[in-house]
Amino acid sequence: MKDRFRAVQFGCGPIGCAVAKLALQRSNIELVGAVDIDPNKIGRDLGEIMGAGKNLGIPITKDIDGLFAKTKVDIVFHQTSSSLKKVAPELIHLLGFGVNIVSTTEELAFPFMTHPELAAEIDKVARANRATVLGTGVNPGFVMDSWILFMTAVCQEVRKVKAVRVQDARSRRLPFQKKIGAGCTPEQFQKLVEAGTLRHVGLTESIAMIADGLGWRLDEIAESIEPIIAQEHVQSSYITVNPGQASGVRQVGKGLRGKEEVITLEFEASLGAPESYDAVYIDGVPNMEVVIKGGTHGDIATAAIVVNAASRVIEAEPGLLTMKDLPIVISRS
Amino acid sequence: MKDRFRAVQFGCGPIGCAVAKLALQRSNIELVGAVDIDPNKIGRDLGEIMGAGKNLGIPITKDIDGLFAKTKVDIVFHQTSSSLKKVAPELIHLLGFGVNIVSTTEELAFPFMTHPELAAEIDKVARANRATVLGTGVNPGFVMDSWILFMTAVCQEVRKVKAVRVQDARSRRLPFQKKIGAGCTPEQFQKLVEAGTLRHVGLTESIAMIADGLGWRLDEIAESIEPIIAQEHVQSSYITVNPGQASGVRQVGKGLRGKEEVITLEFEASLGAPESYDAVYIDGVPNMEVVIKGGTHGDIATAAIVVNAASRVIEAEPGLLTMKDLPIVISRS
Repeated sequence: MKDRFRAVQFGCGPIGCAVAKLALQRSNIELVGAVDIDPNKIGRDLGEIMGAGKNLGIPITKDIDGLFAKTKVDIVFHQTSSSLKKVAPELIHLLGFGVNIVSTTEELAFPFMTHPELAAEIDKVARANRATVLGTGVNPGFVMDSWILFMTAVCQEVRKVKAVRVQDARSRRLPFQKKIGAGCTPEQFQKLVEAGTLRHVGLTESIAMIADGLGWRLDEIAESIEPIIAQEHVQSSYITVNPGQASGVRQVGKGLRGKEEVITLEFEASLGAPESYDAVYIDGVPNMEVVIKGGTHGDIATAAIVVNAASRVIEAEPGLLTMKDLPIVISRS
Repeated sequence: MKDRFRAVQFGCGPIGCAVAKLALQRSNIELVGAVDIDPNKIGRDLGEIMGAGKNLGIPITKDIDGLFAKTKVDIVFHQTSSSLKKVAPELIHLLGFGVNIVSTTEELAFPFMTHPELAAEIDKVARANRATVLGTGVNPGFVMDSWILFMTAVCQEVRKVKAVRVQDARSRRLPFQKKIGAGCTPEQFQKLVEAGTLRHVGLTESIAMIADGLGWRLDEIAESIEPIIAQEHVQSSYITVNPGQASGVRQVGKGLRGKEEVITLEFEASLGAPESYDAVYIDGVPNMEVVIKGGTHGDIATAAIVVNAASRVIEAEPGLLTMKDLPIVISRS
């Protein structure tokens, strides 16, 4: 395993800053640059944007060519958008410098079914430049896909799988609480769904990854989304939800073979959910029920898995990889 | 992924037969030979030994050279002994034919600390013959090592880890129930411990694998073993345990850094254990508690992970690998 490596933080929003903060804590990682396109951030020090309380000597730049021309970089932590279409030009530009990338773009977690042409192009450019790209995160990337696949190792047969992720969003950031529609009327909630801003991105990618891993051919992947309506007052530090308003979202993804639902992913995030947990259920030989008590905190876990994946990605063969193809990602602090 | 491969069953005891039985169910595996040294098995058909109710046209042989000279083989399922010293000549002989091996030899799961010279030799022979060897199983190999490491992916920091495996052995085979000392007086139990026949092999290997994965240097690995004494009558289909006799075994492995216990593995197998489960506890950021409800049935899971690992082992780079170095093993039936 490579002892030390040099990293650039690409995208300095909340998740990017959380990744950078963790990278700075790791003795084997040297953070050597930061990129963002926000005019309010360009030229300022990453430490200031992160709220680190001190400057890091890392000015945020949008000049990617300039940065990579003068700096040797092993890996880029890429946290900008959920949309593969949006980030593909960024990834391809970066890959041209032969740098490896760990991205939290949800649609990159398993893009071969939903975006086959973009996936093929990114894979081709990565190979041509001897670089590796991975899309990961806690979800997609872990609790609703690679964790299920990992647990099937001890199954002689797998007939159906189900993952449930229930989160009390009161401990999450305000943007997350807003994103799940907390405090909206049912009508407002519906408008946000129609505008496409409320949807958690990744269930379809997770289902496609699971099916590919298990060697299943699916006939259909379907997603549904609905508000969780508060029965009583719920409150977070930021938002008050009245009865009849949405306290959050319930999103379900289904993978069907014929008419049979063989993969089910249930995602619930709401203010005041009675119990946070992640669970995997395997209908097979043997049946399995595995539970992460208290669940997996999205922001903490996402920063962790991105940083933890770095050494695996650096060591891996060139190309576009997914979590199911990589040796197990381990926390080394 | 290779579509189909040809396998030989090496060792036709209970575990070997369970592996062969599962391999026969998989459409992508063709079982082309069986090896055992037991004079009572040689020359008889594998199907008869397995209790398959029919002959498979696979005679059990001890003539390894003859078998591999005339048969193309991709992988050997190797289930003979827990002791690496005992199996090393078998593995080296097999590797000479350039075949890949998945072995359930417990001491092979992570032999680099306990048997560094043997590990280096096996690795060297494997590389020289472009073959891959993996030691795996449910424990060591999964519930007390690679599963822990897998779960750390979402941790920013790991301070200590603990795994607990509690099994009600009433559903297991008679040899297993005997092996854990069920029905022994405390004195008989102690004699079996001293004779070395009662000990579950693998805790030290699991601890070494975890430490290596996390990048921890341990100062000491210690194991203790004691009987679980029945307070009341317990009974399985095979054995009756009276109060004051051992209903099973409690074995604890500890990895220490200085005086601090940073890795703890607790293994309990007894007739009538109140609840079977496997659990992982991570003291870190965040803390994690993950539970496999009902636990993981040893025999079913071991056969599963051996057969499921085959395709990963065939695809892997040559050498001696462990579960922590392999892409996640997935059940494909």
